[in-house]
Amino acid sequence: MTLAAQGSPKTRPNAAVELVIAALADRFGEQVTRNAVIREQHANATSWHPLEVPDAVFFARSTEDVVAVVKLCAAHKVPVIPFGTGTSLEAGVNAPFGGISLDLSQMNAVLAVHEEDMDCVVQAGVTRKALNAHLRATGLHFPIDPGADASLGGMASTRASGTTAVRYGTMKDNILGLTVVMPDGTVCRTGTRARKSSAGYDMTRLFIGAEGTLGVITELTVKLHGIPPSVVAAVCAFPDLGSACNAVIASIRYGLQPGRIELADSLQIRACNAYSKLAMAEAPTLFVEFSGLEAAVKEQVELFGQIAEEFGCKSYDDAATAEERNALWAARHDVYWACLQLRPGSQFIATDVCVPISRLADCMTETHADIARSGLVAPIVGHVGDGNFHVSIMAMTDDAEEMARTKAFIDRLNHRAIAMDGTCTGEHGIGEGKRSFLRDELGVTVDYMRRLKATLDPHAIMNPGKVFEA
Amino acid sequence: MTLAAQGSPKTRPNAAVELVIAALADRFGEQVTRNAVIREQHANATSWHPLEVPDAVFFARSTEDVVAVVKLCAAHKVPVIPFGTGTSLEAGVNAPFGGISLDLSQMNAVLAVHEEDMDCVVQAGVTRKALNAHLRATGLHFPIDPGADASLGGMASTRASGTTAVRYGTMKDNILGLTVVMPDGTVCRTGTRARKSSAGYDMTRLFIGAEGTLGVITELTVKLHGIPPSVVAAVCAFPDLGSACNAVIASIRYGLQPGRIELADSLQIRACNAYSKLAMAEAPTLFVEFSGLEAAVKEQVELFGQIAEEFGCKSYDDAATAEERNALWAARHDVYWACLQLRPGSQFIATDVCVPISRLADCMTETHADIARSGLVAPIVGHVGDGNFHVSIMAMTDDAEEMARTKAFIDRLNHRAIAMDGTCTGEHGIGEGKRSFLRDELGVTVDYMRRLKATLDPHAIMNPGKVFEA
Repeated sequence: MTLAAQGSPKTRPNAAVELVIAALADRFGEQVTRNAVIREQHANATSWHPLEVPDAVFFARSTEDVVAVVKLCAAHKVPVIPFGTGTSLEAGVNAPFGGISLDLSQMNAVLAVHEEDMDCVVQAGVTRKALNAHLRATGLHFPIDPGADASLGGMASTRASGTTAVRYGTMKDNILGLTVVMPDGTVCRTGTRARKSSAGYDMTRLFIGAEGTLGVITELTVKLHGIPPSVVAAVCAFPDLGSACNAVIASIRYGLQPGRIELADSLQIRACNAYSKLAMAEAPTLFVEFSGLEAAVKEQVELFGQIAEEFGCKSYDDAATAEERNALWAARHDVYWACLQLRPGSQFIATDVCVPISRLADCMTETHADIARSGLVAPIVGHVGDGNFHVSIMAMTDDAEEMARTKAFIDRLNHRAIAMDGTCTGEHGIGEGKRSFLRDELGVTVDYMRRLKATLDPHAIMNPGKVFEA
Repeated sequence: MTLAAQGSPKTRPNAAVELVIAALADRFGEQVTRNAVIREQHANATSWHPLEVPDAVFFARSTEDVVAVVKLCAAHKVPVIPFGTGTSLEAGVNAPFGGISLDLSQMNAVLAVHEEDMDCVVQAGVTRKALNAHLRATGLHFPIDPGADASLGGMASTRASGTTAVRYGTMKDNILGLTVVMPDGTVCRTGTRARKSSAGYDMTRLFIGAEGTLGVITELTVKLHGIPPSVVAAVCAFPDLGSACNAVIASIRYGLQPGRIELADSLQIRACNAYSKLAMAEAPTLFVEFSGLEAAVKEQVELFGQIAEEFGCKSYDDAATAEERNALWAARHDVYWACLQLRPGSQFIATDVCVPISRLADCMTETHADIARSGLVAPIVGHVGDGNFHVSIMAMTDDAEEMARTKAFIDRLNHRAIAMDGTCTGEHGIGEGKRSFLRDELGVTVDYMRRLKATLDPHAIMNPGKVFEA
């Protein structure tokens, strides 16, 4: 394999990279590899963005390993791309300027569980499912669920959330402190295990959502939550999107605390029916889950039923047993596969806008009209309690004309959300895909983000080409 | 009045300050004042730290006014000290290098209330009580309650919280976005009204807790919450601090969601009994409040009663009516006055450590022993659900020997909390009083905070002498 055969010509072949790889091989042996397959696996593999492979992959086993890699790369101005499980939907792990993909998946130890404090300390490569398996005997869990079995470090770096954010918040709300290897190789600890603090700048939140552009997260202290003793799920179909959204708004104002509250549009329901062999009404549908103490859950299920009826809910099924509940949520979880089946041969292109909930029905309705005008196949699911929704565009990615239509649609979608005082990304991050929208959304504030970046990472080695436009 | 008669000789008289004040007077007339009484009121007035008065006070009426002041001060390298209501307990509003106290109290407009989105946009000078009065007809409230009727801008700047943090979190959890005047006079908006976002660095959280050292917050978009339809309070006395703490730990693990859960030690109860003419048992006592939907509250009150009994609770009174509840909480709220009466002539010196809840009983017990050894009069109250507690030292501040003992005690208290993986400040901030502890707590991370400060505020005009040691 020749390096020149792959990747961007603008940086390779590159003597500095060669030096770094040789030095790493010398010191760490098989922890560094130039294997072409492994390198491809470490570039963007889960989105429609083009593949940009790193020059080598390094498998870190400790914070000290990360320090060694970062120091070497800093000395030679070689890019470092932190890698967890590679499930970024915006090409956060691509290597547009080559460099070293720093794979943290072997840093997968749960270092401490503090049951009384309801927190734990994990290495960055621990995945959310592995953590929850580890916690099984404690009655505690880590509830943030972005869908993919992502690493905690990656989830922190993209400020991830998912279906449970309406109840538990996002990664920014569930991290007490981080261990970070700074771009100069210094190891920083950003917080203590105190549940709250007013001591200095919030360095923890600075790294959460920074997408690996300010340093490498190697350890996290995360909050845990008690597993709710009672869980009841329900599904209800509404005459239109506005009614479904208004039912959610009314519920939350009334004081209901759903564990999850998800909206699927008619096309999504049709896809789920086909894939999961169900017979749900093809209408805008809420999937709701209430969890907590028994009387509280019962009270909320009843109240939600009344509110849903008030807003024209056409059918209301609740599922109190774990089995029934799992069947209902399986349909929601299988949205990805259901969508693929909706249009065989197509690729799934994710979008991720989030708007104030009062604008959600408008935004989805306008987006529906845009989908129809654009001739796209694109069902919608939404984390409706947060105003965050995903249009899943099922596109033939080798059809240039369709891709042009798709990209133009995504542009309009992002601008529509921004115009409604919302964001182009509720939980996926900016990565490579949304760099051009960041300034539309936050204006001159982006200049100050860049200044922070330049201060902490003067050689621009940390995950270059992400978050900011060149 | 001569300026030379007051303030620090190291900076005054100062030609640059004179120029700035003259320019402000010329442009803004009576919005700027050198009145000695007003200047003193704008220095530290609520803590035991020495008074350091600004050269002048400017009353801002708009973000544009703030821009004008900051640009002038930046051009002449004159300090700007943002001022809300002046209730900082760590001298956050002192002016150790003179300069302009930038009073935002006249920026007190509620700019928008979005009932469906459960958020509102306010100017920084709006106080929490004024906001809640404004919201009265909506069924919504802003629940963060640090005790003082502080301004929202000041609360954001100190990352404030208080009795309700166990349920609603702190200021960092309740702000969607900020308008900030940067140290160069640029106006930045840090976020949209989307409930969550993964768009770029978390600039909102960077300014929350920065104590005005990175810019001036002029507007805030804050989350609102529904006023709970049912509220029940209870008071229960325990045989010792450990039992009370363990009851709290068990309750939260079990899934109870107290609205508030406060701990007072025996001495504090004695003070409250004397001041509020009550007859509570002189024992470690929890003040608990459950709020939410009716059945949920009933369920939690019952469960909490069972848990409290299990941990040896000696008396359990619940108060379902607003009148009974108010009487109970009045005792908790009057702690400040009760403490002053405990030792006539003394001054109230606040402390503010926060530790992992598993260490809370240890930390309080060791602190009790230290109080006894130190010969101090110092009751304790704690936001026990968060592990945050306050030793209220009732000191004769003109007694040098007693003040030396007091300061040595505070040093040990802060180091004790840090040694338990806690923080020297759960909610009051670093200000001037805790600068020396920040490095003990966060080590080399403080160097990177300083770099961010130097990047955003290269002339060090924003609230100098706070957070960082010289």
